[in-house]
Amino acid sequence: MWELRSIAFSRAVFAEFLATLLFVFFGLGSALNWPSALPSTLQIAMAFGLGIGTLVQALGHVSGAHINPAVTVACLVGCHVSFLRAAFYVAAQLLGAVAGAALLHEITPAEVRGDLAVNALSNNATAGQAVTVELFLTLQLVLCIFASTDDRRSDNVGTPALSIGLSVTLGHLLGIYFTGCSMNPARSFGPAVVMKRFSPSHWVFWVGPIVGAILAAILYFYLLFPTSLSLSERVAVVKGSYEPEEDWEEHREKTLELTSR
Amino acid sequence: MWELRSIAFSRAVFAEFLATLLFVFFGLGSALNWPSALPSTLQIAMAFGLGIGTLVQALGHVSGAHINPAVTVACLVGCHVSFLRAAFYVAAQLLGAVAGAALLHEITPAEVRGDLAVNALSNNATAGQAVTVELFLTLQLVLCIFASTDDRRSDNVGTPALSIGLSVTLGHLLGIYFTGCSMNPARSFGPAVVMKRFSPSHWVFWVGPIVGAILAAILYFYLLFPTSLSLSERVAVVKGSYEPEEDWEEHREKTLELTSR
Amino acid sequence: MWELRSIAFSRAVFAEFLATLLFVFFGLGSALNWPSALPSTLQIAMAFGLGIGTLVQALGHVSGAHINPAVTVACLVGCHVSFLRAAFYVAAQLLGAVAGAALLHEITPAEVRGDLAVNALSNNATAGQAVTVELFLTLQLVLCIFASTDDRRSDNVGTPALSIGLSVTLGHLLGIYFTGCSMNPARSFGPAVVMKRFSPSHWVFWVGPIVGAILAAILYFYLLFPTSLSLSERVAVVKGSYEPEEDWEEHREKTLELTSR
Amino acid sequence: MWELRSIAFSRAVFAEFLATLLFVFFGLGSALNWPSALPSTLQIAMAFGLGIGTLVQALGHVSGAHINPAVTVACLVGCHVSFLRAAFYVAAQLLGAVAGAALLHEITPAEVRGDLAVNALSNNATAGQAVTVELFLTLQLVLCIFASTDDRRSDNVGTPALSIGLSVTLGHLLGIYFTGCSMNPARSFGPAVVMKRFSPSHWVFWVGPIVGAILAAILYFYLLFPTSLSLSERVAVVKGSYEPEEDWEEHREKTLELTSR
Repeated sequence: MWELRSIAFSRAVFAEFLATLLFVFFGLGSALNWPSALPSTLQIAMAFGLGIGTLVQALGHVSGAHINPAVTVACLVGCHVSFLRAAFYVAAQLLGAVAGAALLHEITPAEVRGDLAVNALSNNATAGQAVTVELFLTLQLVLCIFASTDDRRSDNVGTPALSIGLSVTLGHLLGIYFTGCSMNPARSFGPAVVMKRFSPSHWVFWVGPIVGAILAAILYFYLLFPTSLSLSERVAVVKGSYEPEEDWEEHREKTLELTSR
Repeated sequence: MWELRSIAFSRAVFAEFLATLLFVFFGLGSALNWPSALPSTLQIAMAFGLGIGTLVQALGHVSGAHINPAVTVACLVGCHVSFLRAAFYVAAQLLGAVAGAALLHEITPAEVRGDLAVNALSNNATAGQAVTVELFLTLQLVLCIFASTDDRRSDNVGTPALSIGLSVTLGHLLGIYFTGCSMNPARSFGPAVVMKRFSPSHWVFWVGPIVGAILAAILYFYLLFPTSLSLSERVAVVKGSYEPEEDWEEHREKTLELTSR
Repeated sequence: MWELRSIAFSRAVFAEFLATLLFVFFGLGSALNWPSALPSTLQIAMAFGLGIGTLVQALGHVSGAHINPAVTVACLVGCHVSFLRAAFYVAAQLLGAVAGAALLHEITPAEVRGDLAVNALSNNATAGQAVTVELFLTLQLVLCIFASTDDRRSDNVGTPALSIGLSVTLGHLLGIYFTGCSMNPARSFGPAVVMKRFSPSHWVFWVGPIVGAILAAILYFYLLFPTSLSLSERVAVVKGSYEPEEDWEEHREKTLELTSR
Repeated sequence: MWELRSIAFSRAVFAEFLATLLFVFFGLGSALNWPSALPSTLQIAMAFGLGIGTLVQALGHVSGAHINPAVTVACLVGCHVSFLRAAFYVAAQLLGAVAGAALLHEITPAEVRGDLAVNALSNNATAGQAVTVELFLTLQLVLCIFASTDDRRSDNVGTPALSIGLSVTLGHLLGIYFTGCSMNPARSFGPAVVMKRFSPSHWVFWVGPIVGAILAAILYFYLLFPTSLSLSERVAVVKGSYEPEEDWEEHREKTLELTSR
């Protein structure tokens, strides 16, 4: 059974890799300097948002579709995943982002490629302003993710994948003007590796999203809608030894096990 | 138990503060005079709409996610909240709006900031025309909110958060041309306080939305889809002493109590 | 009981009046010649689509939210409403459209008003081309309406109001170039009455939508997904004397009766 | 009973014809060289996406609404349809696409018509780059389709039709820049036949989408979320002799049979 379980685990890690690859490929690709029809701000915001919306719909039941190290860290803080799972997810996301950026680099004509939509400060924003904006961009996204996938809710959550995707669009409608909009360290890391362009402000796209995501997890799970798990249960979740019936991650895994032989 | 209940109440008030802060921060921020890529009307309308859509999804189960004094007043008229709750919600919304506008003021470069997207009459609209438009903008929004969250309905309401958010977008697609589009006294109050710019027509953004919202409550709960509550039950709701099983506000609170210890 | 039922009937007719008033007010208003930020095609298409999406969400459970004489005629052909109800609905829709256009005329500055977005042939389209386009625009809308609200379906229809609204947006993305896009005789009738501008091609906006809607009803209810009603049952529906348990119109009415005292 | 079943089968094939006709008519039509308001990239992407979103909503319960030979091939690879059904579907889709393109050709003014939005390499993309992009465009779409309509999922899939439609929009936001965006051999075939313009790179729009769709089917049904069907059961599905209770295609057909007499 442990062996079977690890099949589901491998699938989930692969799904994170694939989803981040596709997200970075579509997001960055839609934001390049295309001649004669330069993408508009709304268009870029829709591409990133529909990217997340589509991939959450397509792979949410396989891995939870974090597609973002900040989201994985927030799930760890909210005691939703084990430390081991979180570490593998983040590694898969970073690898996927580099692969997606490299793939895009290969297939786009050189004159269009530019800096491959790498994140950078713009409109005279300071690093302090940028990190504050990234914090709030990610905070609203992570609140939306937790609320949309919270199976303790008894009211109508509608279409989680679209709500999460459009929350990413919302973030871009403000964030593009400050930093090109990251909200996601993997999205910033991928093109920076491929273009070998790590600016002195690259830390902004790690600190801002991760602090915002942690803040959202604390607000949601400890203040606004606290879980009933005891401290020892929470520690068990993070260690990977907790298996309640109502845990959705477990539930998905069991479904996967039943169909995997 | 009363003590526990008040924890849920405090959470709901804090959620209104946080939601209005984020809504004003994202909405106003997306509508500033960004150089080289001035936001389009559709883009601004989408930012305000997706802001509400995301926050209703994220916090609807904590407070009902009014995020708007006009909506809270309409809920009071429709006998959905107690007077005490309504008063605390409106205070939290106004504080949140000022905080959101102040935060945006701090982090945006001075040359972009402009008047911080404060509402004002435009395109030669008179105050009478503006107040009429604001009335109808808010009327359609509040009808949509009541219908989307009405648990007496047996048909498919789909995704309430997105329908409510897109109703805000609809309002902006017309309202931006008349007044910059308020539909929400808190959204108008926040930047006016921060910029110390209360124009003589500032009343328009209180009277229009609140009258429109009250009209929607009367239309919906007294004419089109009347509730079966008796007059004494309605008075009890407003006084805060009514506790039916099917009241969704109560239902949420109970869920919260069970998980709050 | 007949008396109570007639209260529900009056409410439904009033809902059609109100919904068409609001739809025409928002749709036309968003398409005027606003200086300095002329509405884009996508923006106008979104305004009309979100108008229908919001109003179907807000009033669908009161009247079915036809908001369109062509839809009402299609429901009659599909044996979903009685002839009496259809006649009252169409009258309410036409009155609502005139009222909405008149309201918009009053509150918009004269230099913006233009021809109040009255429908007319454009881009050198002939009347034959225009009527063909209007037919197909309305055919896809009415297919989407019937499929989205068909309670015989056992699969996931998601969010009917948004699907119907976005189907209206789809129609505008093509139709605007041919005719300004009607899909709805009431939407064309309203501004034509207020501006006293009935062009020789005004018939296009009645014949195209109504023929398209009838074709959709025949395709859907007689060919693609036939009902199991017998001919006599169908006649009874149209006469208003048929009352099955699973008829959604009846179901709504009963709910209304129970709550109306 | 076999006879009745074949009525449902004929309906499904006709639904594929009608859906592809309408999809090509609306999609191509919204992308022509309309004077004075040239369609923007986002607008074209929305038209194609809302076209699929509307038609999946309208006809998904009749035929599954593939509307795309690549999707049908992927369903065959995933053992969701019989070979016979797949062959009829593809033929109906190609016929429908030609009919939709021909209809559009007839009704559009000659100066607008241009090349009828036929797919071609653009922005200096090579055939290798184009086929890679088409592969990934279709891969994400087909993953989204399978995940949105997978009745083995126990979590909330929300609104399948909109998620699938917006996945098509996502593809266009990148694909338009490389090839005008096909993702669908029928969409490329229709205007090429009507305009008699088969470029040397026409194969790109068959190979890219079909290989991407097959890859998605292998990833989804064999790797990420494997089915529990045995090899002999899979062969039986493809041969058309397998009839499990939980197969949704069968389920739909049975519903149709019950109402078709």
